[in-house]
Amino acid sequence: MAKRLSPALQQVKALTFDVFGTVVDWRGSISREGRKLGQALGVRADWTAFADAWRAGYQPAMQEVRSGKLPWTNIDGLHRRILERILDESGLDMLSDEEKDHLNRAWHRLSPWPDSVRGLRRLKKGYLITTLSNGNVSLLTNMAKHARLPWDCVLSAELFHHYKPDPEAYLGAAAMLGLAPHEVMMVAAHKNDLHAAQKAGLRAAFVQRPLEFGDPKKKDLKPEKDFDVNAADFIDLAAKLGL
Amino acid sequence: MAKRLSPALQQVKALTFDVFGTVVDWRGSISREGRKLGQALGVRADWTAFADAWRAGYQPAMQEVRSGKLPWTNIDGLHRRILERILDESGLDMLSDEEKDHLNRAWHRLSPWPDSVRGLRRLKKGYLITTLSNGNVSLLTNMAKHARLPWDCVLSAELFHHYKPDPEAYLGAAAMLGLAPHEVMMVAAHKNDLHAAQKAGLRAAFVQRPLEFGDPKKKDLKPEKDFDVNAADFIDLAAKLGL
Repeated sequence: MAKRLSPALQQVKALTFDVFGTVVDWRGSISREGRKLGQALGVRADWTAFADAWRAGYQPAMQEVRSGKLPWTNIDGLHRRILERILDESGLDMLSDEEKDHLNRAWHRLSPWPDSVRGLRRLKKGYLITTLSNGNVSLLTNMAKHARLPWDCVLSAELFHHYKPDPEAYLGAAAMLGLAPHEVMMVAAHKNDLHAAQKAGLRAAFVQRPLEFGDPKKKDLKPEKDFDVNAADFIDLAAKLGL
Repeated sequence: MAKRLSPALQQVKALTFDVFGTVVDWRGSISREGRKLGQALGVRADWTAFADAWRAGYQPAMQEVRSGKLPWTNIDGLHRRILERILDESGLDMLSDEEKDHLNRAWHRLSPWPDSVRGLRRLKKGYLITTLSNGNVSLLTNMAKHARLPWDCVLSAELFHHYKPDPEAYLGAAAMLGLAPHEVMMVAAHKNDLHAAQKAGLRAAFVQRPLEFGDPKKKDLKPEKDFDVNAADFIDLAAKLGL
């Protein structure tokens, strides 16, 4: 049986989840889609490097929005801009616009980690569970339908026109749920996301995802006592929350 | 077996649902909550009239927002303003602020029509299904959790700061789903909602809800050939969409 929850955790009513890397395996999924496309077209490339290159463009692209260099652009739009830059080096420059669109929507079809769906179902019994991702609403909604993620609702940085880790994203989510920040706990596999959530007044649950970048050594997996919960996966998180 | 869908219907990918009256029975639910509270407090009143009075304040309150007389206020806020005005005549003026808040959240606890959950489950197999209600996100999310409504996502006029039937609400929903207006069909028991959706380029499915106001004579239940579908309930709608 789980030990009694701390007073801080007892007040938590909703869990807001980071998605890319925390709920779904973007690297395995994108490299798989690349490989499939490559086979169909007779193109050979390092598809894991392709996935990594696509993802590497993500933070700088959001920074361009944050700095005002780009007007508000959702993640579908940013993914597409990055894709245009990496197509050549992957030997995919022959794709039509329609084929590029389809490939770009590979981010709508990411596969969950093995424990994600089962863990979310358990967590849903005790909490309102929602995305709080930089991914746009349609991406998150299509992904949930594809992967059977049982969200109670779909919140996104898109609703606030502020990408995480801007405080507006965390505070906007709490307000939209009709909750005080301390009634909401951010769940993420990335410490900077959790630190920003805590700074905005939310609680924080760290979930290790050792395979996000392939090699566990490439990730900081160390539990931190500043987080309200440290968990190995969603099943462990549910257990630690007494579910 | 359903007959072949029309070319217009074949392009529909998402169904956006009106909620109050279309998915849930606000009148039966609110009068039941009033009655329960009255019994607990020893207050006698006509609780159906109480529900009707509360609902009667709804359109004028949204009009105050639309006209700019009130700054953007979500439905929880509007419901609370109306409640303050009708508490006296219902003999509930002794309620504490906390008790008023709880009563106000009766709108988060509305019960679905008998076919709603089963019908939505069927429709979800063929379409992305989402709310498109004037109710705020937290109201709709709490309601879905309470009534087990299996939405793929939760969209609300709150996201666009425009109440239906303003076109921004319909066009905003389509854009947020990453779809063209004609790929989205509004489902509602109210013809003005459907006419406005059609004007914005969406498709329209009319669902009769003869008991919304108690007496079927109080509602326009007539099918219209201008709507893409006319259905008796959600089961009939699913059948007419070939599901």
